[in-house]
Amino acid sequence: MVTTEPVRILGIDPGLRRTGWGLITVTGTRLAFVSCGVLTSDGDDDLALRLRDLHDGLSRVVAAMQPDEVAVEETFVNKDAQATLKLGHARAVALLVPALAGLPVAEYAANLVKKTVVGAGHAEKGQIAAMVRFLLPKADPATADAADALAVAITHAQHRAARARELACAAPRARPARVGRGASLRTRA
Amino acid sequence: MVTTEPVRILGIDPGLRRTGWGLITVTGTRLAFVSCGVLTSDGDDDLALRLRDLHDGLSRVVAAMQPDEVAVEETFVNKDAQATLKLGHARAVALLVPALAGLPVAEYAANLVKKTVVGAGHAEKGQIAAMVRFLLPKADPATADAADALAVAITHAQHRAARARELACAAPRARPARVGRGASLRTRA
Repeated sequence: MVTTEPVRILGIDPGLRRTGWGLITVTGTRLAFVSCGVLTSDGDDDLALRLRDLHDGLSRVVAAMQPDEVAVEETFVNKDAQATLKLGHARAVALLVPALAGLPVAEYAANLVKKTVVGAGHAEKGQIAAMVRFLLPKADPATADAADALAVAITHAQHRAARARELACAAPRARPARVGRGASLRTRA
Repeated sequence: MVTTEPVRILGIDPGLRRTGWGLITVTGTRLAFVSCGVLTSDGDDDLALRLRDLHDGLSRVVAAMQPDEVAVEETFVNKDAQATLKLGHARAVALLVPALAGLPVAEYAANLVKKTVVGAGHAEKGQIAAMVRFLLPKADPATADAADALAVAITHAQHRAARARELACAAPRARPARVGRGASLRTRA
């Protein structure tokens, strides 16, 4: 049971230096590009000010783009603890801003995004941008961050449809799956 | 040149499950306890909702306590990348909320807090709470998180005074030290 009302999906690829965002609409299974961009923060500023700038920028994007649902790329945990921590700060703001606006927020692991958009969990940045342009012919993301954000939005569009079909077939559950339950998505990756 | 106007300092010990906060005033070198508490979030909720709850709780604390300056305990980066990441999310909100309120935010490493309050970088939780009660006789923090938050506030009170004295003696610099420059504090630890 896939809804045929257009749903506005905001994808966010968080980063302290550069946060990509991209808005698409999905009508049934049809995707359409609306807008995308990148928010940057000044590396010379204090961390608190950089997080505030990111908060303010994302708040403006949410207010202007009026998404119905938001999808955020999950932080890649690597061996560089300081880098992981910085990314965690940016991701926290990316999750917080739509939550403050009362919007449902889903999270997707980076390799699930790659698998969904390119078909392989180890896709290169260039492959993702190419597939984003193929799936959204009107999109011309200027940066890899904006392309990644659109890829996250596309991933959410596909997985929310799959989830809606599953729910239509499944017996009622004590706690229905809903957008924002990243954990259930992760286990499918 | 230490100011004799009472300055309200809010200390925050961030955590996703429990965030401690404590407000003190410093008048010259005299410390006084005002209030402290702990904010909790529901571990069953989505991360975005937990961050929103933390944001809302800290916003209420800032609005009620009217601090002049805020001090946040720096995240301890350990080998458990997932735990580091979770703490990073809570810390991001702890830095963001006062920044959104236009307040200066300083950061202090956990071992500098211990060194300042107890005199040793490897103090136990119990020692910190005992020294907090000694330095702030009217404080009776119910939890270790609230005691830690008061310890962060005390640390800021002592270091801001030392910094003010240094500035009074030093020649003018291209970029004067100001509250919020955690990096310069770290190198002195």
